[in-house]
Amino acid sequence: MKIFLDCLPCMLRQVLEAARLSTDDNEIQEKIVSDSLEILLHYKEYECSPDLALAMHQRVKIHTNNADPYRAVKNQDLEAALGVYMLLNVFLRSHDNELYWALKIAATGNNIDSAIYSNINIEQCIEKELAKRFRICDMERFRLKLENAKTLLIIGDNAGETVFDRVFAESLLPLNIIYAVRNAPIINDATIEDANASGLNTCATIVSTGCNAPGAILSQCSPAFLKSFYSADIVISKGQGNFEALSNCNREVYFLLKAKCAMISKKLGVNLNEYVFIRHAGESEAKGDENIGQTGKMAKN
Amino acid sequence: MKIFLDCLPCMLRQVLEAARLSTDDNEIQEKIVSDSLEILLHYKEYECSPDLALAMHQRVKIHTNNADPYRAVKNQDLEAALGVYMLLNVFLRSHDNELYWALKIAATGNNIDSAIYSNINIEQCIEKELAKRFRICDMERFRLKLENAKTLLIIGDNAGETVFDRVFAESLLPLNIIYAVRNAPIINDATIEDANASGLNTCATIVSTGCNAPGAILSQCSPAFLKSFYSADIVISKGQGNFEALSNCNREVYFLLKAKCAMISKKLGVNLNEYVFIRHAGESEAKGDENIGQTGKMAKN
Repeated sequence: MKIFLDCLPCMLRQVLEAARLSTDDNEIQEKIVSDSLEILLHYKEYECSPDLALAMHQRVKIHTNNADPYRAVKNQDLEAALGVYMLLNVFLRSHDNELYWALKIAATGNNIDSAIYSNINIEQCIEKELAKRFRICDMERFRLKLENAKTLLIIGDNAGETVFDRVFAESLLPLNIIYAVRNAPIINDATIEDANASGLNTCATIVSTGCNAPGAILSQCSPAFLKSFYSADIVISKGQGNFEALSNCNREVYFLLKAKCAMISKKLGVNLNEYVFIRHAGESEAKGDENIGQTGKMAKN
Repeated sequence: MKIFLDCLPCMLRQVLEAARLSTDDNEIQEKIVSDSLEILLHYKEYECSPDLALAMHQRVKIHTNNADPYRAVKNQDLEAALGVYMLLNVFLRSHDNELYWALKIAATGNNIDSAIYSNINIEQCIEKELAKRFRICDMERFRLKLENAKTLLIIGDNAGETVFDRVFAESLLPLNIIYAVRNAPIINDATIEDANASGLNTCATIVSTGCNAPGAILSQCSPAFLKSFYSADIVISKGQGNFEALSNCNREVYFLLKAKCAMISKKLGVNLNEYVFIRHAGESEAKGDENIGQTGKMAKN
């Protein structure tokens, strides 16, 4: 997906946040912002927003020598998510149409963000978000596919969200599930360590995409991951970063996310903060479509 | 006031908004954003945020040949504000402590923003905002000063807010009131045309600061304005832009505003979205103070 002009100020704000999480030294923060402005000036040379974000957040790591600025934030999110693991299971068991609500639990996990939920009212917030239905849900096709599927690849997004994905994955056992995560810490995205801490290793094979960006950019992924990506019977992509990286990819992918920014929601053809589970047909079927939400297929951009 | 790192993404977002108000041509929007990133790289060369904003928004004017991108927005705000002029007068007459509530009306006008209020519920919103009291109100000193004052200079902020300032100004008649506005259109700030459209000419002498920035930067103001600024018995500065430009100035100024951003509210020592009427003593009295809200005087930076 192309980089919108709106992404630039948003990404600058985010890199400043990462800089502040990494150091209290104002001069270093200034240097990171200055480097980021230089990178933003060349934004057209980057494939998509996650690619640009990677370049900017690498400057944080270089200038602060901190390989994981969001470590404390991720720990907080993981702890909060693990704290509602039982609640999620109770919720799922108390609803008919298990597949729908298991998907909805995974989508709601995309909401996990320490900036949004405080520990005090996380249960209340999550119950409220769980109750919201998908705006678009291509579930019937997915259900049919699932009947004959042997392998499901889930491309994960944030730490903490991984606990919600575990509840979803457990509901699909004994299906062979591969859970892919970022190759290295980037923003609050999940790594192998975070996936393990979420207990995903009990129900899925955890692998790295080989890509360090906050989105699975195929040109940066490892051959091993690409083999899984192209051979899996079903691929689910979680969150905005993966959507931005994979929205034009040449295989069928189910995107499962909350549309948390105006540009993404516009692209999906839904309102801000709505949930979607949407099938991307793959390049061969999608030519000429303007946006995914109106057509059930993917846009070219 | 120094430029905070937080200002940079915010100003980039704002110049993109201005670019879109001025043109639908994506290439021109990109050029404006690109120029703005170049300017942001040199942000330390600018005196304060309004100075930096001026440089960026001049690029909008140059690339789109549109001298007043916010004309339609300002007209909408003026219309909405004129629509509640009678309500403001009724509100003022129905309250004791006229000076306090007249100041509060002027402060509430600082909230006028077409992005916040729609025409549908503007009356309801304004009544709610009017009822909120000042977090800091240095009124008693102001009241004493007013008893012997011959001339009051008000440095205005946004179009529409000017109508609220008119209600305040009318409550002080027959005091000699000078109302100063930007020298040229910049963002949604008031110009002489907007002040006249608000009816301020019926109760005040309307002048230009001589400065084109969205804040009265003294080094860019005209000799005529500077004469008024230094000879007026009382100076009231409206809004964040003027506060950023004048927070270290060398004469007594009363700042009247709503703290609409995290950095300004921190600087003022109040919570986000709180109202203040706060006396800045002038350079000679203020040395070494950390922030204005805790001391009643101004910080050095």
